[in-house]
Amino acid sequence: LAKPGQTHRGRRNVLLIVADDAGFESPVYNNSVVHTPALQRLASRGLTFTRATTSVSSCSPSRSAILTGVPQHQNGMYGLHQKQHHFLSFDGVRSLPLLLSQAGVYTGIIGKKHVGPDSVYPFDFAETEENNSILQVGRNITRIKELVQRFLGSTDGRPFFLYIGFHDPHRCGHSHPELGSFCERFGSGEPGTGSIPDWKPQHYSPSEVKVPYFVPDTPAARADLAAQYTTINRLDQGIGLILDELQRAGHEGDTLVIYTSDNGIPFPTGRTNLYQQGLAEPLIVSSPRHRARWGQRTKAMASLLDITPTMLDWFSVPYPEYAIFHGTRPVHLTGRSLLGALTHELSWNVAFGSQSLHEITMFYPMRSIQVGNLHLIHNLHHLMPFPIDQDLFISPTFQDLLNRSTAGEPTKWYKSLNEYYYRPPWELYDMATDPEEKINLAGEPKWQETLQTLRLQLQNWQWDTEDPWVCGPGAVLENQGAFLHKSKCLSLHNGL
Amino acid sequence: LAKPGQTHRGRRNVLLIVADDAGFESPVYNNSVVHTPALQRLASRGLTFTRATTSVSSCSPSRSAILTGVPQHQNGMYGLHQKQHHFLSFDGVRSLPLLLSQAGVYTGIIGKKHVGPDSVYPFDFAETEENNSILQVGRNITRIKELVQRFLGSTDGRPFFLYIGFHDPHRCGHSHPELGSFCERFGSGEPGTGSIPDWKPQHYSPSEVKVPYFVPDTPAARADLAAQYTTINRLDQGIGLILDELQRAGHEGDTLVIYTSDNGIPFPTGRTNLYQQGLAEPLIVSSPRHRARWGQRTKAMASLLDITPTMLDWFSVPYPEYAIFHGTRPVHLTGRSLLGALTHELSWNVAFGSQSLHEITMFYPMRSIQVGNLHLIHNLHHLMPFPIDQDLFISPTFQDLLNRSTAGEPTKWYKSLNEYYYRPPWELYDMATDPEEKINLAGEPKWQETLQTLRLQLQNWQWDTEDPWVCGPGAVLENQGAFLHKSKCLSLHNGL
Ligand SMILES: [Ca+2]
Ligand SMILES: [Ca+2]
Ligand SMILES: [Mg+2]
Ligand SMILES: [Mg+2]
Repeated sequence: LAKPGQTHRGRRNVLLIVADDAGFESPVYNNSVVHTPALQRLASRGLTFTRATTSVSSCSPSRSAILTGVPQHQNGMYGLHQKQHHFLSFDGVRSLPLLLSQAGVYTGIIGKKHVGPDSVYPFDFAETEENNSILQVGRNITRIKELVQRFLGSTDGRPFFLYIGFHDPHRCGHSHPELGSFCERFGSGEPGTGSIPDWKPQHYSPSEVKVPYFVPDTPAARADLAAQYTTINRLDQGIGLILDELQRAGHEGDTLVIYTSDNGIPFPTGRTNLYQQGLAEPLIVSSPRHRARWGQRTKAMASLLDITPTMLDWFSVPYPEYAIFHGTRPVHLTGRSLLGALTHELSWNVAFGSQSLHEITMFYPMRSIQVGNLHLIHNLHHLMPFPIDQDLFISPTFQDLLNRSTAGEPTKWYKSLNEYYYRPPWELYDMATDPEEKINLAGEPKWQETLQTLRLQLQNWQWDTEDPWVCGPGAVLENQGAFLHKSKCLSLHNGL
Repeated sequence: LAKPGQTHRGRRNVLLIVADDAGFESPVYNNSVVHTPALQRLASRGLTFTRATTSVSSCSPSRSAILTGVPQHQNGMYGLHQKQHHFLSFDGVRSLPLLLSQAGVYTGIIGKKHVGPDSVYPFDFAETEENNSILQVGRNITRIKELVQRFLGSTDGRPFFLYIGFHDPHRCGHSHPELGSFCERFGSGEPGTGSIPDWKPQHYSPSEVKVPYFVPDTPAARADLAAQYTTINRLDQGIGLILDELQRAGHEGDTLVIYTSDNGIPFPTGRTNLYQQGLAEPLIVSSPRHRARWGQRTKAMASLLDITPTMLDWFSVPYPEYAIFHGTRPVHLTGRSLLGALTHELSWNVAFGSQSLHEITMFYPMRSIQVGNLHLIHNLHHLMPFPIDQDLFISPTFQDLLNRSTAGEPTKWYKSLNEYYYRPPWELYDMATDPEEKINLAGEPKWQETLQTLRLQLQNWQWDTEDPWVCGPGAVLENQGAFLHKSKCLSLHNGL
């Protein structure tokens, strides 16, 4: 094993590109309507994962899990980081940027950071929403290109880790309605929208979009999707510019490039939910040192919790033995390095999900486990209705769904609003026969043994990752005093 | 108005003593069983408030409200500060210690701090759980006395603000069961319990305790109360030592002394609830400059949100005009100075309550308003059961209640466990005819008009204090983009 900082020959740098709320709107993932030549170029030079998931379908928690390898419930980023939501990772968490920096890697972030505190997530070079307009560093692909040039020009011989957080294709109708529901008019040159010189806006017709099964097939939703496509295409043009800069700087041959998204698309049952459309993420891993599987696809069930181990593996930096809080157990990373997948097919078939909050008022803790095609979801607070976030609520798609529902008109949706709000405590889906997760098997007698097995495996992971919610909602976690090092769930007898 | 820092002659210093989970176990409040001579001495030299309340029945949120004058939902301390709970006030909040320090006051804290970050709550002199054992600085009254001596000896001519956070009479059976359910054996001299030279332990018999109406009258609860009494008596002996030190240092004539507790006693329906027994607090305000009402009692409805305005008034420090977040409205303090009450009876008759979380898993947002004898409580998440905290759960009182309930035996309690868990969305009590808050009038037709009036007044306060929960649980708060400066609650149509 190489000493920390002593990289293998040719394994010098990493470029991690994370899109914001992107899905599978790309020919890489069989959507031939949206144009994403940059992603296709990357996929031809890398391995495409068809069964990758995030562990959590919320921005800051997902980014905290990407940058630490530790799930939200263990790293402290229980919900959104900004403004009144104010979630922060625990001071004792040792993040990827921190460990890489300590090992002599030059670290940079451009775009959306959305995690904190800075002491846990330090970057040598930082141009984010903390010191810029998020529109400029997150969506203005010319500005992003210039910042990438500046970063690459500032490298000093050390290996580098560049993390680019696009803000596209996140909605912006709730904050900048004048720029379109997906900010598809930002920088278009129309009066008041600014200009992005490198961007050639591409427009899509509502009639040509591919409506996912979980989105109502209505004119309002189709218009929403068409706007999203324009923004996704801008994201792709930006990715193209970045890959060009990497090549121009002479690093195409020594840089691992990873592309993914933080959470599912912002449509009902997508983002903030743990259904497939909330958890499934695009993931392309492109290594110039591993060309055997270029252009291939893999069904290995990767998780965004694997990104930190993957990058530590690339840089030959070991994960330290330490505990986040004094007196607790050492951190045991959930994920593993994906580099093995670049040479041979991995049979990975387990993925975990854990969400606690999104906005501060949106407390709807869920835990999930996928084993192969089986997916078990625990809705800990199922008696309360599923909460709706400010940006989804005001979106054309949701407003139309709400209006149709309350007016008693056909919603063209595969669920009713009431079903969306009021869920059972357990949901079990067999995605082999029911890929759209419509048939809940949790109440079926012949599925009980499977459910209990999955439930136990999920709960073991919760214990292993120090989940405060491990005993909820029907029991209290006792882990101090008489229960120190002998943690136990004690029943509340509250009917749950 | 005096310039900041230029104090009125004789108004030099403030001593603020906050007990942890204390109630009305004192002859000052008509409980003649517990011995509290120091509190009686303080009451004879001050004004006793019989209708004071905290705005929130949880430790860190209450202490954040005491030290900022701003409710938890506005200052960010939505729940507990320590460990995995990890709540922190927003960086932009200007706290009492910060403002006093900027005005030239020397600030000190001894004992339980339990709020953060330090940048929001700075103290020149600090001996707290952050740099000491909480048992030593919070319950060892000899150590506390020595720290008070050190602080008073370190003053340099500036006016001072000394904040003493006792940890007594907080439970400790969940963390140190060997020291007794209320740490009543800590420092008793028994093997392994340490020694507190100045403490003369006083024991009480379970048969002599006064069982509050909201505590089950059972042997287990009586034993629990007897232990609490011992700890409360130790608290009082500690207060006596502190007042002696103040006198010995020559400051009895120039120091405002305030005694209170942060939240209700840790028994079912007390702490973490917004019933009277969760919200009502002891409050004694003793000024050597205002002797006219020494020994008197007042029914003025004071709040712990009044403490910051009171101390700013005492030191002649104005509250600045500023917004916590860029682009939002300036902070409007809810409370007012209590100094007027020291000279004449105030007719204050409104008090607000606001709680969001306690432990990180305990999300049960409640808002309340009291106007005179009327008390309205909104349980925003009433469909889920009321959560139970780790220390209450394992307590002898609650374990006995749980065992009796599940065994179908008489609980000797005024509620059933199911009623405690599953509450209506609105509770309205007329404490004039129903002081024990047993009869919920919220569903009564003849009380609807009153309910709506109170509800509107409560919601106005929530708007005024930028409450993220102002629209919950049946609507979403939209306050950006098209709703910027025109915030609105938009219905979710979720049945709530
Ligand atoms: Ca996102
Ligand atoms: Ca307390
Ligand atoms: Mg920050
Ligand atoms: Mg701190």
